[in-house]
Amino acid sequence: MSIYSFKNDYSESCHPDILKSLAKINMQQEEGYGYDSHTINAISKIRKLLGDKNAYIHFISGGTQANLIVISAFLKPHEACVCANTGHIATHETGAIEYTGHKIITVTSKNGKLTPEQIEKAITPYNCEHFVKPKLVYISNATEIGTVYTKEELKNLNEYCKSKGLILFADGARLGSALSVKEANLTLKDMYDFTDAFYIGGTKNGALLGEAIVIRNEALRDGFKYNVKQKGGLLAKGQVLGIQFETLFKDNLYFDLANHANEMAKLITKGLKEAGIKFLTESLSNQIFPILKNEVIEKLEKKFGFYIWEKVDENYSSIRLVTSWATKKEEVLKLIEEIKKLNN
Amino acid sequence: MSIYSFKNDYSESCHPDILKSLAKINMQQEEGYGYDSHTINAISKIRKLLGDKNAYIHFISGGTQANLIVISAFLKPHEACVCANTGHIATHETGAIEYTGHKIITVTSKNGKLTPEQIEKAITPYNCEHFVKPKLVYISNATEIGTVYTKEELKNLNEYCKSKGLILFADGARLGSALSVKEANLTLKDMYDFTDAFYIGGTKNGALLGEAIVIRNEALRDGFKYNVKQKGGLLAKGQVLGIQFETLFKDNLYFDLANHANEMAKLITKGLKEAGIKFLTESLSNQIFPILKNEVIEKLEKKFGFYIWEKVDENYSSIRLVTSWATKKEEVLKLIEEIKKLNN
Amino acid sequence: MSIYSFKNDYSESCHPDILKSLAKINMQQEEGYGYDSHTINAISKIRKLLGDKNAYIHFISGGTQANLIVISAFLKPHEACVCANTGHIATHETGAIEYTGHKIITVTSKNGKLTPEQIEKAITPYNCEHFVKPKLVYISNATEIGTVYTKEELKNLNEYCKSKGLILFADGARLGSALSVKEANLTLKDMYDFTDAFYIGGTKNGALLGEAIVIRNEALRDGFKYNVKQKGGLLAKGQVLGIQFETLFKDNLYFDLANHANEMAKLITKGLKEAGIKFLTESLSNQIFPILKNEVIEKLEKKFGFYIWEKVDENYSSIRLVTSWATKKEEVLKLIEEIKKLNN
Amino acid sequence: MSIYSFKNDYSESCHPDILKSLAKINMQQEEGYGYDSHTINAISKIRKLLGDKNAYIHFISGGTQANLIVISAFLKPHEACVCANTGHIATHETGAIEYTGHKIITVTSKNGKLTPEQIEKAITPYNCEHFVKPKLVYISNATEIGTVYTKEELKNLNEYCKSKGLILFADGARLGSALSVKEANLTLKDMYDFTDAFYIGGTKNGALLGEAIVIRNEALRDGFKYNVKQKGGLLAKGQVLGIQFETLFKDNLYFDLANHANEMAKLITKGLKEAGIKFLTESLSNQIFPILKNEVIEKLEKKFGFYIWEKVDENYSSIRLVTSWATKKEEVLKLIEEIKKLNN
Repeated sequence: MSIYSFKNDYSESCHPDILKSLAKINMQQEEGYGYDSHTINAISKIRKLLGDKNAYIHFISGGTQANLIVISAFLKPHEACVCANTGHIATHETGAIEYTGHKIITVTSKNGKLTPEQIEKAITPYNCEHFVKPKLVYISNATEIGTVYTKEELKNLNEYCKSKGLILFADGARLGSALSVKEANLTLKDMYDFTDAFYIGGTKNGALLGEAIVIRNEALRDGFKYNVKQKGGLLAKGQVLGIQFETLFKDNLYFDLANHANEMAKLITKGLKEAGIKFLTESLSNQIFPILKNEVIEKLEKKFGFYIWEKVDENYSSIRLVTSWATKKEEVLKLIEEIKKLNN
Repeated sequence: MSIYSFKNDYSESCHPDILKSLAKINMQQEEGYGYDSHTINAISKIRKLLGDKNAYIHFISGGTQANLIVISAFLKPHEACVCANTGHIATHETGAIEYTGHKIITVTSKNGKLTPEQIEKAITPYNCEHFVKPKLVYISNATEIGTVYTKEELKNLNEYCKSKGLILFADGARLGSALSVKEANLTLKDMYDFTDAFYIGGTKNGALLGEAIVIRNEALRDGFKYNVKQKGGLLAKGQVLGIQFETLFKDNLYFDLANHANEMAKLITKGLKEAGIKFLTESLSNQIFPILKNEVIEKLEKKFGFYIWEKVDENYSSIRLVTSWATKKEEVLKLIEEIKKLNN
Repeated sequence: MSIYSFKNDYSESCHPDILKSLAKINMQQEEGYGYDSHTINAISKIRKLLGDKNAYIHFISGGTQANLIVISAFLKPHEACVCANTGHIATHETGAIEYTGHKIITVTSKNGKLTPEQIEKAITPYNCEHFVKPKLVYISNATEIGTVYTKEELKNLNEYCKSKGLILFADGARLGSALSVKEANLTLKDMYDFTDAFYIGGTKNGALLGEAIVIRNEALRDGFKYNVKQKGGLLAKGQVLGIQFETLFKDNLYFDLANHANEMAKLITKGLKEAGIKFLTESLSNQIFPILKNEVIEKLEKKFGFYIWEKVDENYSSIRLVTSWATKKEEVLKLIEEIKKLNN
Repeated sequence: MSIYSFKNDYSESCHPDILKSLAKINMQQEEGYGYDSHTINAISKIRKLLGDKNAYIHFISGGTQANLIVISAFLKPHEACVCANTGHIATHETGAIEYTGHKIITVTSKNGKLTPEQIEKAITPYNCEHFVKPKLVYISNATEIGTVYTKEELKNLNEYCKSKGLILFADGARLGSALSVKEANLTLKDMYDFTDAFYIGGTKNGALLGEAIVIRNEALRDGFKYNVKQKGGLLAKGQVLGIQFETLFKDNLYFDLANHANEMAKLITKGLKEAGIKFLTESLSNQIFPILKNEVIEKLEKKFGFYIWEKVDENYSSIRLVTSWATKKEEVLKLIEEIKKLNN
């Protein structure tokens, strides 16, 4: 790609520290299938942050895989998921959840998040054996449109789910970014305290690949590793994932990387707002959706890589700009200048 | 692990050249999901070896994943697999194939391989709608017990399958080792010419992770990438797999690594045979199964890592020794000496 | 039930002629699993009506079973269904289709029917391997809200589907009623000519149980009976279904029964319209949805059985009245009188 | 069929009393989906025999359906069944269980039954997440080769399963016949006391169709009716099944019918044994397997219907003779005479 890309947060391979760690352990002989020393160390580091030395943690290679393994492990055949209409499992996973046999009930949500009221309204009609039984609430944090849950919101959601016997599961493909939004006041420990399970996304925050599935609810842990293996998610060389999370959770690297991504996004947001540009969603995380004139978009595409998100009206569309741990400030500044220039 | 391990061919991380390649491209921005330049290059290199510039190739992260994606993509719900009782899908994949809905019909095979006669006998009773319909023959090359198919054997098997409308699929987790057995006289191009699909194992031959699925039969390609995504097998950072296969298939590295593994196994075999030790199977590949006295095994375990395979009689058991691209000759020699010493 | 029920078209067991036929053949020995003489005769009678002596026909016991067997037999894992938001598979089948692994894409439809334009708009965003691939269009005729497809509409839908490589499948749980709506001008042969597959509902039109799946598209027939058996749909005593369809399709009984149901519904519609009562949908089939004052409904429930369908506003709701082959004219007249009386 | 058939126990439709009951209630309006009065009565009658007024009972239409619904409801994705190699689910159900995602581990059994020792040996190697987890033991009573479990055997099996955390499920397609074998000393209540779940076969014991699933283990009942609906097993006209079981369990009819079937089989066994004919299995139930000269079989086929079971040696094969509630004594006597005559 000859032009600088804001298409996504997985364009570059990995943070240099991860590569260094990989190189350092490269010729060590390790046990296979996740019993290696680096997986064990990484789990230990994450457990410390969660405040539970028995937290169940398993590393796998990607987000769709995490979602399908978790959901198929947690649900009985007749049980269903509830999620926002923008939820990744409902849109961009090629029916992975349905392939495991479960219906997804979608809730139309303007900001990509779910509230107890919305869920309550959605599940009420499902009241007998002719319908699936709603059992798991799937949320994404950050959401697919850049919004994040506050501590208060997540706490309430969790209380509601508990009161209804619903499992709360959070897709954390972009959890680093969500937790680095200061306004949300949410920590990794909060994620653990206020969900039944979630995953910590590595792929979109500096790892070559890798997501850390965390299960708090003890009733849901039984046989989980069997399920990982059955779905093709158990890597022979577990250290490849272990060493990456060991590195990410040593010296705060995971949060530093996410913070950089957020800062870069904030810079763009600030720059464009100053130029009078509006946004599709209120995002404080690393995905932002400015609304531009179609002719501006057309010209901008020749200078920077990004996706057109959706048509707003005849003359305007929103685009998606994604920043990451690797995003260069100089390119951000160039981007702002270019948009300002084209917009005049 | 403080003692040298012959437990498997995935103890070390990856060949140093692969790490170098990864480092070289690390900060390049690439397209996601397998549309990156390194995946394209790697495919192009493999196609050249297969002699078909349109060969369908897709990289994924592991062997169980490869098997379940391929088989679920190829079969209708009522169709079944046939494989040797030692077949990986029938034993060590936690029911991954059954999870995709398909029965596995196992054929008892002494050498881990299948012949047309064995298959014919196995499928004959499946003759009406009360039974599954045998449709896909799964073989492993090398097999799980170290044996390999000769060119002639594979050719015959393929002809038989074609004549019966059966799909022939080869699990190539250890294909490098199989193709490096000179006595088999089998090339990568032969694999392509004499199967409907197979995969080229990277994980067990020097890659961090990665298998290259190759589909020759055009009727089986439709929608394959959708199936990869649905099963959680589509990596965001496709270049992580692409660059590894690009490196493995540049300058013959893939075969050099496999050759080394075989040479190390051959050295052990030769050394132990000279000492009068018998083997469970006739293996020319990188997995060998010497039969040792139980007391010898017990002592040997304190010096080297390996798995006990099966009991042979009251006093003897076979062990599994696996060599790899990373196996050190000095450790091989020590191992031979140690066994000889203990055996006297 | 002490009060007369308009709850559904499956309250009574079966038409007396069917019982007579069952009694007549009761002690005959027949071949099992659908190879009996009555199944063969019934198929032959239906084939005559379809104008194709090779039409593929299979009898099974219920509608959800028919839908799940057909759809799972026709689709590859990554392929999806498109249906109206009111479609039975999307609402009242406890996720049966998702259990077979397939996503259902719903289209909001005011009248329960689908048009090419609606489908086109719905499937357009599904354009790459991150999404399921829309492949089968599911319609119901009559629909779940009483509307029916005209010959012209079905013909157009079929042409559209063919042009897009989509399979058109019609749920005919209430096909008898649909085909007995003269205004629709649609015959059983038209159903065959303008779909890839459909089923002829018996359970809701006078049979004890039974639906006749009809597949026109030859490419979709392969292995179908295996799929019926695998899903638990192959009855040992096939004659139980065969003799019922033999009876229903001898001397026009199937259509006579449906016609009676429609006539009874029409009578109610006429009576209530004369009394100024409005309806939720324009139904000419055996399900009608009058809109009544809530207090009227409350009182009516003490005299007749029916379901409340949906709230229309603060004071009004629609109810569902279903007539059938067994509905007594005297009860219909009493119902009309009662509603008129309560409505004043 | 012009010749008298001993092919199976489902050639004739149903016992005349069942037909009478069906006729009697034919025009009654009933609630749908198993909430009808006859289903309720039938459940109540069976509960009395089980000695538990809260026993969970659900009627469905066939045996394969019963097996797949039960097993898919009880197991998690990574859990597997254990059954005899002759088990119906392992052979004649077109992979119905595998379609629900579960592996079947078969145990070679000479008499079609399982013992704790056999199960223990079979499950021992399944000891980590690379293998499925054996969780449910499937037995058939009577077995597919006519043998039956004694009270003592079932009690022991149940104790073993409980001690290992295994679910014990019995396929009772021919339970009537099994319970009518006096030597087994087993009652319907024993079946309930010594299993987690089983089903009472109606189809092969006088019903038009229908099996009664009985679940003792309360932990396994949750959501079961949802699962029945999802798999297409919930009949709209539940009374069709209800009235049949109501009739079968009024005045001992179920056992009278089974007893007649056994008596007829016993008569044949006695007759043939007197003529020096040997049998493949020791059957006291309604399926028997005499071993005849191939030339005798060939001639016998012109007079009676039956299946050839398996080749015994070059000159001899066993045939399967099945008797039922409908088997005529005069035909049994003719059969014995014919075999005796041909055998001389």
